[in-house]
Amino acid sequence: MRRPQRTTASRTTPSPSDAARTHRAVPFTAVEFRDGLWAPRQRAVREHTVPFLHAQYEKNGLFEALDVDSPPGPLRIPFNNRPNTAVMYWDSDIAKWIEMASYTLALHPDPALDARIDELVAQIARAQRPDGYFNTYFIRREPAKRWTNLRDWHELYCAGHLIEAAVAHAQATGKTALVDVVRRYADYIGTVFGPGPGQRRGYCGHPEIELALIKLHRFTGERRYLELAKFFVDERGRQPHYFDAEAIARGEDPAAQYYGTYEYSQSHLPVREQREVVGHAVRAMYLYSAMADLAGDCGDADLLRACQRLWTDLTTKRLYVTGGLGPSARNEGFTADYDLPNETAYAETCAAVGLVFWAHRMLLTECDGRYADMLELALYNGALSGLSVDGRQFFYDNPLASRGDHRRWTWHRCPCCPPNIGRLIASLGGYMYSIAPGEVGVHLYAASQARFPVDGVSLLLQQQTRYPWDGAISIRIEPQRPVEFGLRLRIPGWCRNARVSINGAEFNLRPATDRGYALIRRRWQKGDEVRLTLDMPAERIYAHHAVAADVGRVALKRGPVVYCIEEVDNDAPVHRLALPRSSPITAHFDSGVLGGVGTLCAEALVVGSPRNGDPAMNPGDGETDEREQDGGNDREDESDRDSVPLYGTIPPATRPTTIHAIPYSFWSNRDPAGMSVWIREA
Amino acid sequence: MRRPQRTTASRTTPSPSDAARTHRAVPFTAVEFRDGLWAPRQRAVREHTVPFLHAQYEKNGLFEALDVDSPPGPLRIPFNNRPNTAVMYWDSDIAKWIEMASYTLALHPDPALDARIDELVAQIARAQRPDGYFNTYFIRREPAKRWTNLRDWHELYCAGHLIEAAVAHAQATGKTALVDVVRRYADYIGTVFGPGPGQRRGYCGHPEIELALIKLHRFTGERRYLELAKFFVDERGRQPHYFDAEAIARGEDPAAQYYGTYEYSQSHLPVREQREVVGHAVRAMYLYSAMADLAGDCGDADLLRACQRLWTDLTTKRLYVTGGLGPSARNEGFTADYDLPNETAYAETCAAVGLVFWAHRMLLTECDGRYADMLELALYNGALSGLSVDGRQFFYDNPLASRGDHRRWTWHRCPCCPPNIGRLIASLGGYMYSIAPGEVGVHLYAASQARFPVDGVSLLLQQQTRYPWDGAISIRIEPQRPVEFGLRLRIPGWCRNARVSINGAEFNLRPATDRGYALIRRRWQKGDEVRLTLDMPAERIYAHHAVAADVGRVALKRGPVVYCIEEVDNDAPVHRLALPRSSPITAHFDSGVLGGVGTLCAEALVVGSPRNGDPAMNPGDGETDEREQDGGNDREDESDRDSVPLYGTIPPATRPTTIHAIPYSFWSNRDPAGMSVWIREA
Repeated sequence: MRRPQRTTASRTTPSPSDAARTHRAVPFTAVEFRDGLWAPRQRAVREHTVPFLHAQYEKNGLFEALDVDSPPGPLRIPFNNRPNTAVMYWDSDIAKWIEMASYTLALHPDPALDARIDELVAQIARAQRPDGYFNTYFIRREPAKRWTNLRDWHELYCAGHLIEAAVAHAQATGKTALVDVVRRYADYIGTVFGPGPGQRRGYCGHPEIELALIKLHRFTGERRYLELAKFFVDERGRQPHYFDAEAIARGEDPAAQYYGTYEYSQSHLPVREQREVVGHAVRAMYLYSAMADLAGDCGDADLLRACQRLWTDLTTKRLYVTGGLGPSARNEGFTADYDLPNETAYAETCAAVGLVFWAHRMLLTECDGRYADMLELALYNGALSGLSVDGRQFFYDNPLASRGDHRRWTWHRCPCCPPNIGRLIASLGGYMYSIAPGEVGVHLYAASQARFPVDGVSLLLQQQTRYPWDGAISIRIEPQRPVEFGLRLRIPGWCRNARVSINGAEFNLRPATDRGYALIRRRWQKGDEVRLTLDMPAERIYAHHAVAADVGRVALKRGPVVYCIEEVDNDAPVHRLALPRSSPITAHFDSGVLGGVGTLCAEALVVGSPRNGDPAMNPGDGETDEREQDGGNDREDESDRDSVPLYGTIPPATRPTTIHAIPYSFWSNRDPAGMSVWIREA
Repeated sequence: MRRPQRTTASRTTPSPSDAARTHRAVPFTAVEFRDGLWAPRQRAVREHTVPFLHAQYEKNGLFEALDVDSPPGPLRIPFNNRPNTAVMYWDSDIAKWIEMASYTLALHPDPALDARIDELVAQIARAQRPDGYFNTYFIRREPAKRWTNLRDWHELYCAGHLIEAAVAHAQATGKTALVDVVRRYADYIGTVFGPGPGQRRGYCGHPEIELALIKLHRFTGERRYLELAKFFVDERGRQPHYFDAEAIARGEDPAAQYYGTYEYSQSHLPVREQREVVGHAVRAMYLYSAMADLAGDCGDADLLRACQRLWTDLTTKRLYVTGGLGPSARNEGFTADYDLPNETAYAETCAAVGLVFWAHRMLLTECDGRYADMLELALYNGALSGLSVDGRQFFYDNPLASRGDHRRWTWHRCPCCPPNIGRLIASLGGYMYSIAPGEVGVHLYAASQARFPVDGVSLLLQQQTRYPWDGAISIRIEPQRPVEFGLRLRIPGWCRNARVSINGAEFNLRPATDRGYALIRRRWQKGDEVRLTLDMPAERIYAHHAVAADVGRVALKRGPVVYCIEEVDNDAPVHRLALPRSSPITAHFDSGVLGGVGTLCAEALVVGSPRNGDPAMNPGDGETDEREQDGGNDREDESDRDSVPLYGTIPPATRPTTIHAIPYSFWSNRDPAGMSVWIREA
């Protein structure tokens, strides 16, 4: 049997010059959403998530931590047999809140919020030590333990989030007070860590500072931050192992790790030698994000190859159909190839958010549509599911099936996910466009307008579309004066038939399309309109046969959106619904559901009661139930259940029904919330 | 829609006189297995389990515990955040080993083993305190804490197992040294606990002593042991709650329970008011066993009704098709109705063994075949699966599906299951027959011979059969002299067509059969032969539609044996196999497999690779795979997997195969051990 070779290698081997031809994202400050899916979500984050989380932080004592000169109260979250306490990460939670809140300020001034952020920044500045150090936990509770357990204690991770917050705050408001703090902190970190004599060759157990330092480099132009990020990335996993030495210095056995292995923190091998996505999923995504940034910013083809290998491993063996990742609660991360259980899927919100970060950086480095496809998949599904429609409830883990017992919460002892999905949504404008010399990249489609300069000419880009509920997109292009550039228009990988017209004239896509993008180079002028029409039928998705949980099942997808069946919309518990392979699936927009969403319907079957029971297998059940097949369409009464034996030889009867599917990310906003992405095929 | 009323009530409402008409089991000493399934298993227990566990106990320091006058060493199994340590149960493990070993002595004298048991008995007698108390943990480590935490510390539970061991030892060997010890201990317990002034109104968190005291009563004829058992049973769950008072006396908050609720120990309500099987499954089975015993021995119709309600609840809503029970590892027990997941099924071996105990007692009390059916189901499947074919490896939990990572072990920090399944198998002869005035009950079929008196006449009963691999059973009846009695012959509930002949003449079963038993009353004489022919086709079993894990799936069963598909016998991982509903199932006896077992075969399908891939959903995967449907029957190479996308729009192809199923209880004796009881229907 002839088996064609995979062409991944030829397609993905970059030259350093390719890698250097990096697009830069158009900042979030330039893009405003209008209606559609994202404008209401940004409003929910602004109006609800931001104040709600602030109130939760106050109630749970997070802000008290900033008062480092007061003696600490009892540790609110004890260690409980773990090597760390969630209190050690509170700085990062505060930082992510500042970052999220800052993003909302850019397009929606709010003097009270602005003042509240300033107040927090001032508190942080006051708490910063004279040498530049800032970490409320160690300043206040364990000053002697600074930098003594990088493996478990998230010190540099917290620093990273503070840096991200500072850059966001400055971009959104122009205020540099927090940037001043983090520059001093980063400069101090640069004295402590590095390859020089007397410096520590350490790095954080939880990657984050790396990508943050790269942001700081891009914002300040100071190359030393890029170098420090590169040091942390390249030092990771080297022998002799820093975490070994550090544990010995603490008088501990390096092997006695709570999480068992260095795979957990992706420090089992030097990053350039890593070939499998392993360990804690969020750590992995943050590390790979920094690697992708460095590959682009430094023209580092070797590092890019490592990213590509890891990308292929993740996307061909270890990713949920929703773009969720990290199936196991045990290590909050990866397990084995094709191990993707649905009901127990951990698939942390932060991990899918992290995949958006990584995919975005790979996209900017390579401008290959496969990264945009994955960015969009994770964004619309595995990440968005972490936030309720009203912005006030959250998921930490995002299973792909539930019997109704997995519900959104309003507070969690490890509250990392809410501000993470919040900051992503609040800054989503920054993922829409990119610019490179002579090029504008259009990566996402959504009703919006953007204003940014191209070759010094101010450009207004307006998207009119009902995407993702419809595949018709109108892009009006209004440069201040006529200007020539290439419009690099994404043709999603899920689309089998796309058409483009420019000012009403058809544009031949075939010769212009490369790696998922159509390049339309022309002299653009006011009033130009590009119309993109993406065929967007509802489709059945099948998983690889090695994914045990999905064999005999089908998922429904339309455009970038993965759907699920939720009990509230259907007339039987979801586990009893079965979809015949031949049943047509129709797409609708239902303005009355969940604020308006695309829905899918199909004729299907309910597996119900057998026509009669079989007492042989069910000695406790007495006489058989003679009732005929239930022809009704009403939700069945629980009391009906008792008349059917627990086990019998008669196959269960089925009755016809119509199944209704909603976007996966919208589930658990109503009752009852039994849910399944993968539907049994009849 | 007319719905007939269930007749359970009319069928199960007993009168006290019914309850008093109790059968008594013919003791294990009277029955010897010959070939078939059980003789080799008894041999494995005798030749391997008994010495192997002895060696494991020695290696792990269990026997050291008996040396109560030496200072204790470090606690081998620390408390680790739990309210108890497994070391607290070591007495019960030793007792169960003595019980199991004693059973083997009855028919197979072994002077060395006999001496070893005597030595242990002597050690126990030496360690017993002058007041009769015996518990190595509290004598040696915490003498001041005797009887201070009945809820968590298993003190009376250990006493119960010692009593069971003593009775077994005496029955098997005629030696009463251990009975003397436990009588003194039970008498002492009777002074401490009871309704009288100055007595404690307590009972054990883990039921066991109750059924043990009833055994002691039956063995000694001393009614006070029965009364004490009845006290423990009736006191359970009463208010004010003993465990509350006890916790307060320890200075603890009664609500701060490790396991959360009194349902865990079935002490949430007085036992007569309990309607749902809840909590720790083994505790439940041991408690219900004692309740059934008391219902019979005391003619207590109210208690019998409580047992019947619990029986119906278990068997119609909370039992695995294997007779396994208690789906959750969290509480080692029950959860919600129809919550019966397969891969994560806890279904502890001890719980299925406990169900055999309970079913046996219900059977002896009511002589209703539904109890015998369940006894047989749990015995051949959920219980037997806990022991490897060679008797040297064990399961604690018995999932109904595995991806190959659940394997038998040789040692466990809580080693309760091995001697539990061991003592059941070693004493299985005691479950075959019963006698009541003018009646002999035949409950199980197996190649064997038994000798016991009926109305003072010695009777030899010889069964010739290949059961459970075949439904033909010949029972030769040889009384010393002619004697009239009713032979109450079980007609299993799973059998749709049974025929009986007596000395070659057909016997009309219809008028003679009541509640699963054919009563054949005649004057029996030497040479009489009853031939029973049970139709035993392989059957498909379907679960109630509320069992989410089993919808769209089918289990295979033949006679009492539930089958499973194991990867080693099949040409693809079990999750990829699908069985068309129309595919005939054929039964075979395969002498070359696992020492000889019944197997089932059927034409089925393997869900395999799609004909070609779909790169749209799988951006990392590059080109599509054009290969045609795999027509081969060889096990597929893992490397084949990589050429198929993780998600795609093309349904996976299937190819025909033959599936091979083995008895569930025989799984995980070979490699590779992926397994499933419930097979997807194609």
